[in-house]
Amino acid sequence: MTTESLNFPAIGSDALKATFRMHASGVAIITSHDQDGQPIGFTATSVTSLGSNPPLVSFNIARGSSSYPHLVVGRDVALHTLSATNLELAQRMAGPKEERFIEGDYQLVGQLPVFPSASSILIGKVRERFEVEANAVVVLDILHGTEALQEDSPLLYYKRGYLTATERLADNS
Amino acid sequence: MTTESLNFPAIGSDALKATFRMHASGVAIITSHDQDGQPIGFTATSVTSLGSNPPLVSFNIARGSSSYPHLVVGRDVALHTLSATNLELAQRMAGPKEERFIEGDYQLVGQLPVFPSASSILIGKVRERFEVEANAVVVLDILHGTEALQEDSPLLYYKRGYLTATERLADNS
Repeated sequence: MTTESLNFPAIGSDALKATFRMHASGVAIITSHDQDGQPIGFTATSVTSLGSNPPLVSFNIARGSSSYPHLVVGRDVALHTLSATNLELAQRMAGPKEERFIEGDYQLVGQLPVFPSASSILIGKVRERFEVEANAVVVLDILHGTEALQEDSPLLYYKRGYLTATERLADNS
Repeated sequence: MTTESLNFPAIGSDALKATFRMHASGVAIITSHDQDGQPIGFTATSVTSLGSNPPLVSFNIARGSSSYPHLVVGRDVALHTLSATNLELAQRMAGPKEERFIEGDYQLVGQLPVFPSASSILIGKVRERFEVEANAVVVLDILHGTEALQEDSPLLYYKRGYLTATERLADNS
């Protein structure tokens, strides 16, 4: 148990980027609306459960993003998980913001845009925002959601590209 | 754009669980040590970047977990990303806590246990903890880390089991 065989040469943001290249994440879409009822949304790779009782979800966002000012406490938000068949949607929602919402591709639940092609959808409200440097952790209270809408293999982000997962290794014991 | 074709029947924690079954996540291992220098650690599927300048990472944890009392502000922490070849390590670090650390399987960096078989390692310190209900978001300042140690396909968690990702769909444009 020595450290001779390991080196930790990279410092700070370079180390972070090198490591997160190696860390796969599920791809999700977050949608909401602005104060005029216009849809907003984006592709997110930081969505994670924050406990099921009560049901909470967190995601991370840059405070400088165009969506952040609209994600105020109490605002309704939809969270979509994606499968490999949603690749084009994931790319579009990560592209120019005026091209993200195409008539007929989404439905409205009140003022909230939802994509029925997602593998599953949760609807909640912004509960709390924790600001850290130039970023924020946004916590949602989950109110309801769909059952799984389809069971295709999941869409993943890894090494700056999209993949799907096909090879099952083990069930949780 | 009507809601007629979509139903949102599931409420609360059931909806959350049904949706997160459909959301794949990368598998990581978090390690640290207690006040006596004894190693602690666990498998985590909630690790995500919180910005690269300055480099920050967040993960979620139940406040009732045995590790949480040790993750005090300022404590040094190692974050390991895993590949498919680390399946046994991921399962072990999610199992009984007295069986998690096997002599010769880890190295010590000061008092911090690190697993050299990981695909990449970051070392940081607990910066802040945001407590929400029975859970917490833990934010780390990243100080340094390895370059990628190996390039095997990533280890994922999905539908209560472990998978790897093999099929690349698209590069980020």
